[in-house]
Amino acid sequence: MKHFIAAPDASEIDRLISSALYYKQSPRADKLLGEGKRIGMLFMNPSLRTRLSTQIAAQNLGMDAIVLNLDKDGWKMETGDGVVMNGSTVEHIKDAGPVLGSYFDIICVRSFPSLTDKEEDEKDTMIRSLIRHTGKPVISLESTTLHPLQSLADAISIREKSVPGRKPKVVLSWAPHIKPLPQCVPNSFAQWMNVLHRDVDFVITHPEGYELAPEYQGNATLVYDQQEALADADFVYVKNWSSYNDYGAMPAVQSDWQLRASSLAHAPAAHIMHCLPVRRNVELSDELLDSPRSIVPLQAANRVWAAQAVIASILKSL
Amino acid sequence: MKHFIAAPDASEIDRLISSALYYKQSPRADKLLGEGKRIGMLFMNPSLRTRLSTQIAAQNLGMDAIVLNLDKDGWKMETGDGVVMNGSTVEHIKDAGPVLGSYFDIICVRSFPSLTDKEEDEKDTMIRSLIRHTGKPVISLESTTLHPLQSLADAISIREKSVPGRKPKVVLSWAPHIKPLPQCVPNSFAQWMNVLHRDVDFVITHPEGYELAPEYQGNATLVYDQQEALADADFVYVKNWSSYNDYGAMPAVQSDWQLRASSLAHAPAAHIMHCLPVRRNVELSDELLDSPRSIVPLQAANRVWAAQAVIASILKSL
Amino acid sequence: MKHFIAAPDASEIDRLISSALYYKQSPRADKLLGEGKRIGMLFMNPSLRTRLSTQIAAQNLGMDAIVLNLDKDGWKMETGDGVVMNGSTVEHIKDAGPVLGSYFDIICVRSFPSLTDKEEDEKDTMIRSLIRHTGKPVISLESTTLHPLQSLADAISIREKSVPGRKPKVVLSWAPHIKPLPQCVPNSFAQWMNVLHRDVDFVITHPEGYELAPEYQGNATLVYDQQEALADADFVYVKNWSSYNDYGAMPAVQSDWQLRASSLAHAPAAHIMHCLPVRRNVELSDELLDSPRSIVPLQAANRVWAAQAVIASILKSL
Repeated sequence: MKHFIAAPDASEIDRLISSALYYKQSPRADKLLGEGKRIGMLFMNPSLRTRLSTQIAAQNLGMDAIVLNLDKDGWKMETGDGVVMNGSTVEHIKDAGPVLGSYFDIICVRSFPSLTDKEEDEKDTMIRSLIRHTGKPVISLESTTLHPLQSLADAISIREKSVPGRKPKVVLSWAPHIKPLPQCVPNSFAQWMNVLHRDVDFVITHPEGYELAPEYQGNATLVYDQQEALADADFVYVKNWSSYNDYGAMPAVQSDWQLRASSLAHAPAAHIMHCLPVRRNVELSDELLDSPRSIVPLQAANRVWAAQAVIASILKSL
Repeated sequence: MKHFIAAPDASEIDRLISSALYYKQSPRADKLLGEGKRIGMLFMNPSLRTRLSTQIAAQNLGMDAIVLNLDKDGWKMETGDGVVMNGSTVEHIKDAGPVLGSYFDIICVRSFPSLTDKEEDEKDTMIRSLIRHTGKPVISLESTTLHPLQSLADAISIREKSVPGRKPKVVLSWAPHIKPLPQCVPNSFAQWMNVLHRDVDFVITHPEGYELAPEYQGNATLVYDQQEALADADFVYVKNWSSYNDYGAMPAVQSDWQLRASSLAHAPAAHIMHCLPVRRNVELSDELLDSPRSIVPLQAANRVWAAQAVIASILKSL
Repeated sequence: MKHFIAAPDASEIDRLISSALYYKQSPRADKLLGEGKRIGMLFMNPSLRTRLSTQIAAQNLGMDAIVLNLDKDGWKMETGDGVVMNGSTVEHIKDAGPVLGSYFDIICVRSFPSLTDKEEDEKDTMIRSLIRHTGKPVISLESTTLHPLQSLADAISIREKSVPGRKPKVVLSWAPHIKPLPQCVPNSFAQWMNVLHRDVDFVITHPEGYELAPEYQGNATLVYDQQEALADADFVYVKNWSSYNDYGAMPAVQSDWQLRASSLAHAPAAHIMHCLPVRRNVELSDELLDSPRSIVPLQAANRVWAAQAVIASILKSL
């Protein structure tokens, strides 16, 4: 694997899941693999799980990990071509890229979408620029459109909790929130579930106006009625996102989409998923989050093994 | 030892002091003890000595240490039960706790009191929540009521500077400041000195209105007259704190409580202590801080060995 | 070497360049040299290259590196003598210094000038105070007057790109900017080039009003006409700085000092240098920065080897 910025094909996902489950059993089994290698983690935004799990994964592989809060420890980067830099951006990614490429063997970056300029967000400029200007493997720690390390951890969790011989029904269920959130997590989860269509029946449910971009919705079954969508679900992934079509807006919603125990009357065996952080009693009820049905902590714990599988795969290809 | 959030009993304190003094001689003697173990240090507030000394202690024991400035790199945590999270808190400690517990072998946390809501501060909610929800050993890097790593470093320093065969007189002397400070350091120091009552004669002196909570003042001798309290002192711990009874207030003080050389007319052999940071010429005079009587740098240096003794003790119990 | 805060003599610079070029070939050749040693890096300001390259250099030498953003993770330091600390400074460097000295084997610090108080800036108070109060070797990560690690990386780059047997003409060429910048980089570069006067012909060109302090300009040839200065240059170091005489001001400039390909009509072989971050199309044109004439990425990459040579030299003297 060269870069990790979107879902790979199904066989590569299988290999990553197997590798992750191996490291989960033996975290330090490859502690010499990354010896003398250095990973740089650039953050433009706050992060808890991603920041910690990626550092831990790199340390488990024997790498030196350096975290740089580019927004606070550094300064604002320019990405436009030919710009006269007489404004607020201090350094061009064309100049910073080669420097980062000379300092690190692998570069990870998190950036967030504006949610105001769809065209710009869809370019995923920061990731693309780093790939182009560092000359080194780049891992997305969440881009302006996708969050593949989260989706790999989700896929691992679904694999662990699936009943052998039974193709699970996986439902992505929109949830309310107090402010507009990116589509990165649902985009990415949908992308991965679509690649894994031989392994899962994938259904998306959300209020009208919250349709995902067609390229990510793909072949998923879209059901606007939440109750109907949830029937017989094995996994329910609860997540808020803002409108893609009316970009970044929060179209009014008629009914109550918060997931509660009562929502699952017809899905008695459903496991509850969420990428965290979750707004309790807004997106998901205490009752569900505190019940054994929640595999939310498993997903978060699997972030380490997902990152470790990805970094190991890249290290082996260097 | 499971958690380190308050003074243990006298024999445990003795063991910790011995262990600390051993590590002070041989910092890397146990460099394999923490191999493959990971310590997470969560900060909600600025810190210099605590941040550095705890990292160094963990590194000396071979651990991987990861620092997370939760307030800046992360986001605001909710601790209330059953809250509808439609406000400014982004994640519930019930959800973050298990994640941290799956990432780390030991969890350290610093939080500060509000100084406005006594009842809330006394609950030490963040520490209690982390103990409950991470399932891992928790070390206080200063809580809303106590600062035990500081007190252990203080106890080590007193041990080192005591004259064999002589029970020292230790005086905690209130000092002026420009703003209201927590009671954590004096609460904690008083708690430890009370546990060590067989080893020290412990006196507290402060203006009226600055009484500590009865549970921390314990059996200490309280003397309102600073001159009388300081007579024949062997150790004078200078520290400001705000009122406990009129919670967080700074009741007017009639006389000048700044400690100066002249304050020690009747305590010619007294060692001067302070936990730092100190407001020079407000709490303590330059003259004293720059004299050989000050053991302030010793206390700060001993923070490393205190933390190392505590972490080692926890590692051995895992 | 004890401290690294300014240009050493020519023979020491030669040794450092040789050492840096050795580590560039074999980054981990001395990975045991720093084992059990700890380096503390204090930042009062944002930094990208300096922060990363110094950490990497220390790790390559086997040291434990701890970064402290003193401005954000800590608090404001007092440096004045005898001050009554009833204002915004929280801790005196007299108190923090010995603590840092007891925690670290080598201490690095970055501070920036005020650009408003020349006398104060020229005292380099933070560096001087740390040298005085920590008792440990101090490395400047850029002070209020100089940036020696940058200059060493620049000297390494000039050495690498020089034609054997030919004494290169090196021109420091002032460039426009949108705000007043410190004189540290040009001061330091001029200081180093003056020490290396047997190896380089050193010319400075800038608009009237931008004269450097005489002690740093030294024996450099000053030419106010940019075209004349650039003729037959082998290296052109492009950099903005604010006025020294009218301290921190930006005196009006008549002509366009941005360096473009057309500026180099009479310097066909000139290598272009800049310390980064660079304001593209303000200081330097895209055309030059994106051409093979730019050795800007080389300078940045050499920051690691410069830092590693300096730290190694100090470690060997401990």
